[in-house]
Amino acid sequence: MKIEIKFEEKRTNSYDINLNELNKMHFNTKVAIITNPKVSGLHLKTLLDKISADELYIITVGDGEFYKNQESVNLILENLLNHRFDRKSLLIAFGGGVIGDMSGYVASIFQRGIEFIQIPTTLLSQVDASVGGKTGINTKFGKNLIGAFHQPRAVYIETDFLKTLPSREFGAGVAEIVKMAVTFDRDFFEWLEKSDLHKESDLLEAIQKSVKLKADVVAKDEKEQGLRAVLNYGHTFAHVIESETKYTKYLHGEAVAIGINMANRLALSLGLMSEDEVDRVASLLARYNLPLQYNIKDIDSFYEGFFLDKKTFQSKIKFILSKGLGDFKVTDNTPKEVVLSVLEEFNKDV
Amino acid sequence: MKIEIKFEEKRTNSYDINLNELNKMHFNTKVAIITNPKVSGLHLKTLLDKISADELYIITVGDGEFYKNQESVNLILENLLNHRFDRKSLLIAFGGGVIGDMSGYVASIFQRGIEFIQIPTTLLSQVDASVGGKTGINTKFGKNLIGAFHQPRAVYIETDFLKTLPSREFGAGVAEIVKMAVTFDRDFFEWLEKSDLHKESDLLEAIQKSVKLKADVVAKDEKEQGLRAVLNYGHTFAHVIESETKYTKYLHGEAVAIGINMANRLALSLGLMSEDEVDRVASLLARYNLPLQYNIKDIDSFYEGFFLDKKTFQSKIKFILSKGLGDFKVTDNTPKEVVLSVLEEFNKDV
Repeated sequence: MKIEIKFEEKRTNSYDINLNELNKMHFNTKVAIITNPKVSGLHLKTLLDKISADELYIITVGDGEFYKNQESVNLILENLLNHRFDRKSLLIAFGGGVIGDMSGYVASIFQRGIEFIQIPTTLLSQVDASVGGKTGINTKFGKNLIGAFHQPRAVYIETDFLKTLPSREFGAGVAEIVKMAVTFDRDFFEWLEKSDLHKESDLLEAIQKSVKLKADVVAKDEKEQGLRAVLNYGHTFAHVIESETKYTKYLHGEAVAIGINMANRLALSLGLMSEDEVDRVASLLARYNLPLQYNIKDIDSFYEGFFLDKKTFQSKIKFILSKGLGDFKVTDNTPKEVVLSVLEEFNKDV
Repeated sequence: MKIEIKFEEKRTNSYDINLNELNKMHFNTKVAIITNPKVSGLHLKTLLDKISADELYIITVGDGEFYKNQESVNLILENLLNHRFDRKSLLIAFGGGVIGDMSGYVASIFQRGIEFIQIPTTLLSQVDASVGGKTGINTKFGKNLIGAFHQPRAVYIETDFLKTLPSREFGAGVAEIVKMAVTFDRDFFEWLEKSDLHKESDLLEAIQKSVKLKADVVAKDEKEQGLRAVLNYGHTFAHVIESETKYTKYLHGEAVAIGINMANRLALSLGLMSEDEVDRVASLLARYNLPLQYNIKDIDSFYEGFFLDKKTFQSKIKFILSKGLGDFKVTDNTPKEVVLSVLEEFNKDV
């Protein structure tokens, strides 16, 4: 005997990504703003000028990738449970990618899912992490190995919050902007080459363009069955670098910059990019003081690291490579020796 | 500036609930069977006659509600990470509701979601927990406060596994069958009154009927926006009982039986059920040795316990009550004194 359980849901939900449009909002529910002490010290007052709620709680977790773990999740959950948050309560992620990913993850597992809003305060999270519903935490085995897909109710991107951003973090955000351009939009890349993102108007245009490109990809492939994987250009390498350096030496965007350079060297050796194109990407990244080199001390162990990536199915490594500038190629049959010889190029002091 | 991110996905997925149809299956992936030592000792060999995989792992967690917690989740995750499970890997939940809820939850958060199969080995999980995609774990604040909606790829219900089921656990499953009948199907209730679920053919019919009723509800309201909440008939009370007795004194179905009786006493005092109807439900439950009484020592603290239930929005308690037999009424404005006076009836030694 068989009983079929059939879901025929037509999903047409959507949400807005708002650029410099954070207006006064009152929520008739319990709200928890999840933030870290640094963001809280600099910007919480500004946020509280805009946001009010029937019951408002502020939950502060440690600052940085190191805190994107189960312990911080437990701390947030304990707060929500203690304060009797229910299924109609709301979380607001107020901080960078760490805060956004972790708050979104908590929202996805608390009482089988509650709503959350993203208010990203770093360039990296504004152009990348806050849009698209990927949430998660790190484990000792690697980044984001635990998580869920859980879309925010809305995203508010305020460039005002970037005014206090340290320049290394600014650069880290630029790496993700460059990533979008190199894989999806040659015109955007060439515009970036002649623009200066330290100028407010150029920055706003770059954020808008990046977010638009990302939103299009996510709308087409929310659960990363295909196209969305392209957003991981540079990340296959970056994740290993971050894991080897225990998430302390590089900011995520910095590791991505190195990863983009590594991916491009691989694309070069596979004939997908010219030497000139690889150099143009490298010099754009370098203009924002992003690192391009990394000393791989143990080639084999670095190669092994690829297999912990979520994109590694059935022990095949999937590389996302740029094809020229503004296009991409996804490959899972790159010969091991070709990869190793590219890794060899990075086996030197930097 | 606003950018809209729009999801227009037409979801038409479905899965089969198979009754006594577990045939030989081979999986070309990594598979982890998640089970407990009791089920493993009794039935793992039988399962392995049917199921094989390219790589097969058995992960054993402690037996019982006590183990449905973050520590067990960590243990399972460590295993999956250690063995490099990826997004195409599969989990098989082989056990009762605890195993099913917890395995489903792990499947929902591992690498942002992987597939799992339910092979329930208790009557309770066969007729209830294994169908519908509710997953979760308990916290010290209450049951299932952490979790996700994550549908299995398939459910295999084998009545053979019930042959070793202790009679208390059998009764616990009957409580959920009675729950379905009392709220949705008067004919089914009357059929149950004259049937004997210890007879194989009656049992099979009852399982099929219950699962069909549940599947219909879940297909209409997967995320519990409305109708699905009716499945929590008896549970608002049961959750408090389980929490007060620390999940040790009663099996879940036993607590539900008491909860059904409490809900019916409330329905009686609100004029929704007759004394005769309340008695008929009670005697059907009693025939399967289910408890109907519970000594509430502190009425106020029991009442407070309702507010930790996930169904409690904005501090209103939602009661699901039977209306006559075979119909239901959901109410969130029952006066506190009416509830307290029903709780008073249970303030006596049992």
